[in-house]
Amino acid sequence: MRLETTRYTERFGSVRINDLQQVIELDSGRIENVSNKETIGVKKIADEAIRDIERRMAIIIPTKDEKLKLFEGVISGVPHDCLIIVVSNSQISRVDRFRMEADTLAQFCHFSQREALILHQKDPVLAEALEQAGYTDLLGEDGLVRNGKSEGMVAGWLMAKLVKKDYAGFIDADNYFPGAVWEYAKCYAAGFSMATSPYAMVRILWRYKPKISGGMYFKKWGRASEITNKCLNSLISLKTGFESDIIKTGNAGEHAMSLKLAEILPYASGFAVEPYELVSIFEGFGGVLPTAHPTAAKHGIEIFQIETRNPHLHEEKGIQHVREVLVPGLSVIYHSPICEPETKEMVMDELVSQRVLKSDEEPPKPHFCVLPKKVDIKKFIEVMGKNLASYSGTGEAG
Amino acid sequence: MRLETTRYTERFGSVRINDLQQVIELDSGRIENVSNKETIGVKKIADEAIRDIERRMAIIIPTKDEKLKLFEGVISGVPHDCLIIVVSNSQISRVDRFRMEADTLAQFCHFSQREALILHQKDPVLAEALEQAGYTDLLGEDGLVRNGKSEGMVAGWLMAKLVKKDYAGFIDADNYFPGAVWEYAKCYAAGFSMATSPYAMVRILWRYKPKISGGMYFKKWGRASEITNKCLNSLISLKTGFESDIIKTGNAGEHAMSLKLAEILPYASGFAVEPYELVSIFEGFGGVLPTAHPTAAKHGIEIFQIETRNPHLHEEKGIQHVREVLVPGLSVIYHSPICEPETKEMVMDELVSQRVLKSDEEPPKPHFCVLPKKVDIKKFIEVMGKNLASYSGTGEAG
Repeated sequence: MRLETTRYTERFGSVRINDLQQVIELDSGRIENVSNKETIGVKKIADEAIRDIERRMAIIIPTKDEKLKLFEGVISGVPHDCLIIVVSNSQISRVDRFRMEADTLAQFCHFSQREALILHQKDPVLAEALEQAGYTDLLGEDGLVRNGKSEGMVAGWLMAKLVKKDYAGFIDADNYFPGAVWEYAKCYAAGFSMATSPYAMVRILWRYKPKISGGMYFKKWGRASEITNKCLNSLISLKTGFESDIIKTGNAGEHAMSLKLAEILPYASGFAVEPYELVSIFEGFGGVLPTAHPTAAKHGIEIFQIETRNPHLHEEKGIQHVREVLVPGLSVIYHSPICEPETKEMVMDELVSQRVLKSDEEPPKPHFCVLPKKVDIKKFIEVMGKNLASYSGTGEAG
Repeated sequence: MRLETTRYTERFGSVRINDLQQVIELDSGRIENVSNKETIGVKKIADEAIRDIERRMAIIIPTKDEKLKLFEGVISGVPHDCLIIVVSNSQISRVDRFRMEADTLAQFCHFSQREALILHQKDPVLAEALEQAGYTDLLGEDGLVRNGKSEGMVAGWLMAKLVKKDYAGFIDADNYFPGAVWEYAKCYAAGFSMATSPYAMVRILWRYKPKISGGMYFKKWGRASEITNKCLNSLISLKTGFESDIIKTGNAGEHAMSLKLAEILPYASGFAVEPYELVSIFEGFGGVLPTAHPTAAKHGIEIFQIETRNPHLHEEKGIQHVREVLVPGLSVIYHSPICEPETKEMVMDELVSQRVLKSDEEPPKPHFCVLPKKVDIKKFIEVMGKNLASYSGTGEAG
């Protein structure tokens, strides 16, 4: 894979935010001598470097009643050396869609001779392990893990931790193109191979997100993304004193983290999860508030933003109003302790103009799954580890 | 890459037609020990084997006034080790679209540090080289190469021959997904790596060809493909005496050939080109007619049909009536000297029911670019070789 080199890095406390890097070439061939001139503008990431990361990376696929054909396509695009972890919140009662997913995964694992894990978000053992580990923020009143993609994501990376992976990347199960899934995984690996800190994150910007209406329109920016990015940039700019447009992936659903970073981040529910990852990094390591993690601050938090070659074409689940996506993300910005009045005003202006709020109201407070310092990941691993075989995606145990 | 193994091979004279093989996994990771049980049903093609082929393969991209953004995406998906050869028939006069393509290619080559070739179908030197080589079937009344994708394809593989490649694969310039382009190239290489004969062909079956109308419908078979395949199968079945449905890729635009095979095939114009490749192989090597190429017959002609993981989503150029695609393909079947009366009747029934012909008419005779035995490829190479630098896609010469 060939990428643009990181031409600019915005520094915010001990956070290093790299400017967008485009993928130039999906597959850059064998290792060969690369001339010096290339290293100025373009970075070739050798296959070997990518495979080294892939072997240490889990690809977590959160899914909920997704079409099986799409699910099957997505798993077929994940490079073999990555471990697939499916976290499903699909229905079990009337039609057992979870069972169908497990069967599809097992069939794929059989033919591709690979390992995978699959677990249901409402799995009682999972809930018990989280309870014993003290991570009760994830649990609902019924004692099981709450609904929500963000809760599934946390369960996913905890499983990755359990099986001793170093990185976790998230890929949605509704993608139409296995080749695009493949590219996401490669981008994650390429990003981590460039990282100099063990606390790193890779966020994907789709080259286009085509809209189908009559013909095909290759839309680049969604309205919600534009506004979220603007407000996130304002959050930083007002602290550094230099206006910036560095954040281009505020709502990126396709993203990956080193587990070292995942372990020290709090999470927000629903559509707030992706922008809140950035907000919580800025709060924790921007140098404005005291940091709870001096080791991570010393290494620095490194954020890569990579623009894919493939467009993003996925299942449209009816029209999702821009407000639904926008409000949770903007709320976490508004309620951040590092948010300046000017940014609050910007957020309010957007929400009022979207007619979500009246001008004298405040945005709703988001629900956070704070990862308390006391969460005992070892306890989680102990409880889940005993039952690991039952989560095998190969269908040969459990 | 992991593929189904070839479970069944239909033999027709010295032609070996392998049944469809699905891609199971896009990227099968590092070389590792593969258990014996795998080799029964699934074949893992090692990265190294694929790269060995890629380095000997040209990817030929015929284009005509295609959107530059699509063209750029397509070239970015071609694996680095393959040589890109663009054969353009785009307009030059009013707006110089050929120049824009050359500039786009040069920019891509600059950043990806790769070589490429680009030539215009109406290039006078190309026409002269073909003339001197005795390949005048390709030339029109104005002395230049005729319009048509098939003529561009022949020019493309002759260029591949000139630069000493062993394989040539064709990929259309209007594909929306670079990741799908990447998969085509990998499938070609995987196919050739399985071949035991130097006379080999790989034909792609798209997993789906989605139709956009309101939502997205994942259509598998086009009407024209179904009919063409049925008639091609009838052509073989009536000779072998066993009914067969082995041919599933009669109209495959995405396909590749070893140059040894390309050199001994005659070509048909227009939409007849792809089915005629099969018909001419059956005529030349099916054992019904005497062969003109005993060496090739001794090795056998090997045909692979590979079903991709990615759907095929490309630019819709208005509604192409099924007749336009169907008639040329069925005509070459009808007029084949090995075509039995039953197959002729089947062809006629289809054409009459499509209201293209009346029941007392014959299908039109296709135009063939017969590659006469006398064509002097060395002469072509001599003339074009002198000017090779002017076709460099890097924009640094010529």
